[in-house]
Amino acid sequence: MQRFKENPLITKQMITPSQANFSVCGVFNCGATIYNKQIVLLLRVAESYIQDDPTKVIVPQIDPQTKKTIAISFDKTDSRYDFSDSRVIKKHKTTVALTSLSHLRRAYSDDGINFVIDDKPWIEGDDITEIWGVEDPRITKISNNYFITYTAVSNLGIFTNLIKTTDFFSFERLGTLFVTDNKDVAIFPEKIKGKYQTYHRPVPTDIGTPNIWLAKSPDLIHWGEHQKVLTVKDEGLTKGRVGAGAPSIKTPFGWLQIYHVADATNNYHLKALMTDLTDPAKIIAKTHQPLLKPERDYEQNGFFKNVVFANGIIERETEFIVYYGAADDKIAAAKIKKADLYERLGFKND
Amino acid sequence: MQRFKENPLITKQMITPSQANFSVCGVFNCGATIYNKQIVLLLRVAESYIQDDPTKVIVPQIDPQTKKTIAISFDKTDSRYDFSDSRVIKKHKTTVALTSLSHLRRAYSDDGINFVIDDKPWIEGDDITEIWGVEDPRITKISNNYFITYTAVSNLGIFTNLIKTTDFFSFERLGTLFVTDNKDVAIFPEKIKGKYQTYHRPVPTDIGTPNIWLAKSPDLIHWGEHQKVLTVKDEGLTKGRVGAGAPSIKTPFGWLQIYHVADATNNYHLKALMTDLTDPAKIIAKTHQPLLKPERDYEQNGFFKNVVFANGIIERETEFIVYYGAADDKIAAAKIKKADLYERLGFKND
Repeated sequence: MQRFKENPLITKQMITPSQANFSVCGVFNCGATIYNKQIVLLLRVAESYIQDDPTKVIVPQIDPQTKKTIAISFDKTDSRYDFSDSRVIKKHKTTVALTSLSHLRRAYSDDGINFVIDDKPWIEGDDITEIWGVEDPRITKISNNYFITYTAVSNLGIFTNLIKTTDFFSFERLGTLFVTDNKDVAIFPEKIKGKYQTYHRPVPTDIGTPNIWLAKSPDLIHWGEHQKVLTVKDEGLTKGRVGAGAPSIKTPFGWLQIYHVADATNNYHLKALMTDLTDPAKIIAKTHQPLLKPERDYEQNGFFKNVVFANGIIERETEFIVYYGAADDKIAAAKIKKADLYERLGFKND
Repeated sequence: MQRFKENPLITKQMITPSQANFSVCGVFNCGATIYNKQIVLLLRVAESYIQDDPTKVIVPQIDPQTKKTIAISFDKTDSRYDFSDSRVIKKHKTTVALTSLSHLRRAYSDDGINFVIDDKPWIEGDDITEIWGVEDPRITKISNNYFITYTAVSNLGIFTNLIKTTDFFSFERLGTLFVTDNKDVAIFPEKIKGKYQTYHRPVPTDIGTPNIWLAKSPDLIHWGEHQKVLTVKDEGLTKGRVGAGAPSIKTPFGWLQIYHVADATNNYHLKALMTDLTDPAKIIAKTHQPLLKPERDYEQNGFFKNVVFANGIIERETEFIVYYGAADDKIAAAKIKKADLYERLGFKND
């Protein structure tokens, strides 16, 4: 893949904090689509309180009653708490808070490089599944509706919730699709054999690994008929994670999916797979080598090191543009010619 | 609750092993229903290989291709393995095998005390989600169909699968309803506001606790609209588990559910709650004290100590009979007068 020379395209310095006492700690993992002839990115913006007491860590969360942000204070000298992971606060090995609160914000571009970014959040944590924020949106266009799945985080665990919009202005909340813990939910852009389809990534507790599964639905709300698609073991790993990226794209050769693999040390890379057009559980080709791995400074260093995570892809006439989160705090892009990607998967256009 | 004086009703000595080289390590956690005017229990039977090499642990699993049992051998002197939990073998804190393989077996009774037990399994592990066995069935009668949810265990994690039967002879596999990790799935015996309803118990990884959730379905296959019902915290605990027992029973006061609570040391007890008849996510009453806790020797000692687990209830004219697994290796029963239970929940029949 060819990285944009303008990378990183969007950084936290370009984001207006949503509250005066907030600082932006990252903008990353964006959904992407075309709306009104523009490229629309739905940015994950992570914010934390400006910390003015060095003995404390103050973290934000949403009050599901008032929908307002409240501050929770942790004493840094309290040895029961573990502050070693930049993303979370743990107590007795259990995550008791996230250090940041994420919301979703819109950005628009004509050229795919320069974006006009809203100065306010668009979608924020709302119900009891979202008090620790909303993260990692994926946008699926089905006829004139845009369905947005996103990770909902709270003290109850990690969920995937759904929102529908037709205009990227008003939206309708459609509830929780998958319960604790499940993320990386990428809905296909059309019904296959009469049913909606989605990839999802449930996380088992002490047996097995976080793998990619397929589920089917008559109505996008109720899901079942779960089938295994791709496991960590299929990637030659015993620990780690795999997860779908942006919604799969229909090609002449099958459904194209650019997914992520993370090893046991949280080192990420992107790969591609192709599935049967009539059965997205059936993988017919896979890239052997990573399409993209953390090699540039903006990918290797940031809020969380060595992450490349792509949940937004734009299809152009001859190429795909992949928008990806870099080191959990910036947005970058890379492109790949369709013919090149198909060839890497073993397919040749005539 | 009043324990049957004949307890335990069913013990492993009463079960014919399914293979000559198997021994039965437990019969417990049974589903219960009425069929053909008899009480039918669907027993969870756990078996292991007869161990004749003291340096090894040989465990059974299902080959999903041949559907046959295969033997996996672990070297007891290999220090990478942890054999300290009687139920599982761990390696680097991950469960890599169960010590036993469970199947489901039928038992029939006219009096609810003396059972004729099949000498062969009825439902055995079949697909890739079930290679470590099928466990803890719950039977819901909807018109003339009996829907059986059960826990499917494999190296991919813990699932809930569904089977339908009309005659407790032939059956139809209806696939996976809930993915890793999710168990304690108890489907309601009728639609409420036009949709099927079920309790389920997803297990988050490092945030939150295993709690009871409600899901809804148009067809029993596809599930969504998840709502929180009861959490570990609601029971005054910070760690542990809660889970639904048998399918809820319709009463004049609401939907009655006898559920289990396990504390951080795996000490179980049973309690009851009542929900709104039109909304099974809305709890309107709960017992304060346990209905049943491990007090008898057969409940305190066995394959796994201090477990009382009830996934089968029979409704009689004036009382409920609760069939429960005791210490993960026997089946016992206890009864409670409807009027007494309703009163403990704060309801009085006129």
